[in-house]
Amino acid sequence: MIAGMMMDAPLTITSIMRHAMRVFPDQEIVSVTADRPVLRYRYRDAFDRVAQLANALVGLGVESGDCIATIACNDHRHFETYYAISCLGAICHTINPRLYSDQISYIINHSEDKFVLIDPLFLPVLENVSEELKTVRGVIVLCDKEAMPETSLDNVYCYEDIIAGQSATYDWPDLDESTASALCYTSGTTGNPKGVLYSHRSTLLMSYASVMPDAINLSSKSCVLAMVPMFHVNAWNIPYSVPMVGAKLVLPGPNMLDAEGLFNLIDSEQTTMGSGVPVIWNNLLQYLRENNKTMTSMETVFMGGSAPSISLIRALEKEHDVKVEQGWGMTEMSPLGTLNKWEPEEGEEDRDEMRLKAGRPLFGVDLKIVDAQNQELPWDGEQSGALKVRGAWVADGYYGIDNRTSFDDEGWFDTGDIATIDQGYVQIVDRAKDIIKSGGEWISSVDLENVAAGHPSLAMAAVVAMPHPQWDERPLLCVVKKPGCDFDKVSMKEWFTGKVANWWIPDDCVAFDEFPMTATGKVSKKCLRDKLLETETN
Amino acid sequence: MIAGMMMDAPLTITSIMRHAMRVFPDQEIVSVTADRPVLRYRYRDAFDRVAQLANALVGLGVESGDCIATIACNDHRHFETYYAISCLGAICHTINPRLYSDQISYIINHSEDKFVLIDPLFLPVLENVSEELKTVRGVIVLCDKEAMPETSLDNVYCYEDIIAGQSATYDWPDLDESTASALCYTSGTTGNPKGVLYSHRSTLLMSYASVMPDAINLSSKSCVLAMVPMFHVNAWNIPYSVPMVGAKLVLPGPNMLDAEGLFNLIDSEQTTMGSGVPVIWNNLLQYLRENNKTMTSMETVFMGGSAPSISLIRALEKEHDVKVEQGWGMTEMSPLGTLNKWEPEEGEEDRDEMRLKAGRPLFGVDLKIVDAQNQELPWDGEQSGALKVRGAWVADGYYGIDNRTSFDDEGWFDTGDIATIDQGYVQIVDRAKDIIKSGGEWISSVDLENVAAGHPSLAMAAVVAMPHPQWDERPLLCVVKKPGCDFDKVSMKEWFTGKVANWWIPDDCVAFDEFPMTATGKVSKKCLRDKLLETETN
Repeated sequence: MIAGMMMDAPLTITSIMRHAMRVFPDQEIVSVTADRPVLRYRYRDAFDRVAQLANALVGLGVESGDCIATIACNDHRHFETYYAISCLGAICHTINPRLYSDQISYIINHSEDKFVLIDPLFLPVLENVSEELKTVRGVIVLCDKEAMPETSLDNVYCYEDIIAGQSATYDWPDLDESTASALCYTSGTTGNPKGVLYSHRSTLLMSYASVMPDAINLSSKSCVLAMVPMFHVNAWNIPYSVPMVGAKLVLPGPNMLDAEGLFNLIDSEQTTMGSGVPVIWNNLLQYLRENNKTMTSMETVFMGGSAPSISLIRALEKEHDVKVEQGWGMTEMSPLGTLNKWEPEEGEEDRDEMRLKAGRPLFGVDLKIVDAQNQELPWDGEQSGALKVRGAWVADGYYGIDNRTSFDDEGWFDTGDIATIDQGYVQIVDRAKDIIKSGGEWISSVDLENVAAGHPSLAMAAVVAMPHPQWDERPLLCVVKKPGCDFDKVSMKEWFTGKVANWWIPDDCVAFDEFPMTATGKVSKKCLRDKLLETETN
Repeated sequence: MIAGMMMDAPLTITSIMRHAMRVFPDQEIVSVTADRPVLRYRYRDAFDRVAQLANALVGLGVESGDCIATIACNDHRHFETYYAISCLGAICHTINPRLYSDQISYIINHSEDKFVLIDPLFLPVLENVSEELKTVRGVIVLCDKEAMPETSLDNVYCYEDIIAGQSATYDWPDLDESTASALCYTSGTTGNPKGVLYSHRSTLLMSYASVMPDAINLSSKSCVLAMVPMFHVNAWNIPYSVPMVGAKLVLPGPNMLDAEGLFNLIDSEQTTMGSGVPVIWNNLLQYLRENNKTMTSMETVFMGGSAPSISLIRALEKEHDVKVEQGWGMTEMSPLGTLNKWEPEEGEEDRDEMRLKAGRPLFGVDLKIVDAQNQELPWDGEQSGALKVRGAWVADGYYGIDNRTSFDDEGWFDTGDIATIDQGYVQIVDRAKDIIKSGGEWISSVDLENVAAGHPSLAMAAVVAMPHPQWDERPLLCVVKKPGCDFDKVSMKEWFTGKVANWWIPDDCVAFDEFPMTATGKVSKKCLRDKLLETETN
């Protein structure tokens, strides 16, 4: 091999910080925090404080390769910790405060976190598990001196206190681009959470791909409201991609479900782009309707985590002139895999079924669908198979464990999703573990749920597979009814008849007051199934 | 160091081909060629032929690491050679047919080209030097059998002939991303041309950066007219960045100065984006005015190579609603360094001086200005210094020679340009070698040329430094007058007075019928100076 003669410039998060500081020093970051309603500062100030934090952390004994945890909201201090930790060569381990206590103590111990940086409001989360923690040497509370809460924890520091007086420059190391930068645990349906260890390279390449016009389309003129939690897959990479292009960043702080606060922020900062799970946007939409308000600056909203309904998509478009684009990804994919930018061509009709697909793969993500024999299936929009991916921002294993069941010998990661692909557009048909195998054939629980969701009496619907002596598995419909509405097995049969194949129609229907949810806000089918089996047994 | 656990997916040109084939198989490429007026085909067809060409080349004895030359226009066959050569592991060496014969034979021998793929119309270029060539085993003429010209060359193959019947699949190797992919020689003012050896990695990262909204802003909805020659720094990366995003590519073939043909192509294909040197756009603009025609689909035109005049920028904006964005770069930078996306803020006036700057650095390009002691200068828009750059798509030396005078110990490349920087916006003040050192102070030849260019009697103006016994150097103005116009030393003094400092005003003025030009279409100040000194001596 003859090597090219080009500079060896490593792909690091440090290079994002350097670019933002040098080229866009005056760009703004606006942050809501619990201890100060709205903070407004500039990249130059932010990265001065990042250097101060790095000096403080090193002073406390943080070294290259250490795992440093954060349990925090989307605010400027969390933003600063992202850069200080990763750029000094340590690993920024973001923890979801909504995990169960057992999971939180498990992952802190498993990753051997040395320090925890934590928002005052999440202190109880840590206090609850403090007895179990084996490696944590100290806790840094993300607030100023006046806001420091009482706590039962030991070795507690105040964030503003430790960075005050530190030098605003830091001699950032020249990191190898494969250096680990961040760690995020994902909780599966079984077993302990598994850690995905991102590298500087994977993060930088994810950023390049995500700002492209056919991805999130970010420029220095964008004003981005980051509504994906920064403890969840690096907030879809927004804390990196926004400074990369020199855009304005708006961090909504602790109250992401406070629709009035969000609207005021959108309106006062004139945000052009937002990201988040559908439930947050649904909530905001209801508030806007009830209060007769309109978003005037918002151009695009990216939704992921779960698929938005066509009614939410259309409502935001019609009532607020906001383009809704949905994506698909996962913690193991940093997280972006696909984005749907579909638009009708001139003269073409707008097509709901195109809008509801997960979208096309970003450049840098290879994907394929395979059958049960791992043979690749055609992209004909008809045949569905297990969706496998590979690429520079796809995990190649889990931190500290040998579990490689999702990775095959040819370097592909099995996403656990079942999909069709048409003209490059991926459609997630089901989760492999949610699909129902009835008499050797597959029944899509997602399809059944979509049909059920259209019934006027239902607030929520979920379909689970129940064991069956003859057919192996059969679908069962779980519902939460709207207040004052009726729905039973007979209504169900009537509703489904003609809408799906007869043998797909669920055998029974069970009503719940509410559904059990996972820590990431999805219906927990595992818990649903457990409850149903428990009831059956009793 | 703890390494992240992410997949090792190499950054290669092969990944662009794979993505374009799989996700955008139906996207079009439209190409004008000498032997067939307009060819229209799809990515799937293009990459089938790329595989056929790779099979053919390997059949002829091409191996990984070989240099394979192209001397060709912007058409589909040249596009195919780009991918076939680089993706099989060889090096695509693009040669500028406008170089002097001595330079052409020098670089073919220096790079040890094994084969030359050449357009029929450039055959004389090769025939002229065939006696000197030491390594070339064969010549492949880019046409079909009917169009094969008579030639004195040996071992001549017909492109369509050798690929016909080859398999449309090729087992592309898994290349290391640092593998050399392409080679392009740049001719300086002195000495032999020097080769820049690009890698797969540098090309891919240049592509990621160039498609960003604040760069060329390419999406799958773009339709790109590639008017930068593909023999010139990979046509500003367009042949890579367009398939990366799945856009439509329009290749205008041999007649890039045929304004009528260009307009028809723009109009029939409804191109949205064009790139090229200002002279091509000036030429097209004149044609459109004279024929009372308007471009209706074009949204943005990128200009580089030399700076466009404000009148050209304004005319395209006003008469054709086309946004003109200029950039700056060089062969050693793959080539993009900066792009100017400046726009007035709401309520702000449009400012010519902002439009005329070279723009802000792309993410991935680090730059700084330094004084004579190599000390970094502030970005205050006032102080000018030598512009140095570094980044993953910046050369780290020249192919096969030890000359490292432009590279310093800290990894910076000295561009040879003198610049100021303001708010991240670079302004090229002068070429280091063109700047005039008079009495210990600097006089900007570019500033003087800009003033002279405004004189109604002048078609062209160039300022060169002439040796001076007292002041070391003094400026001398060279002009080409418009037909029937007068201009002399007296007119010059009158024109410059009040526009620049008195001591900047050139000492004399010399009229030429035409200026000597370099192979890349710039005024050759070196030749001008030689002619002037010759005249003085005689």
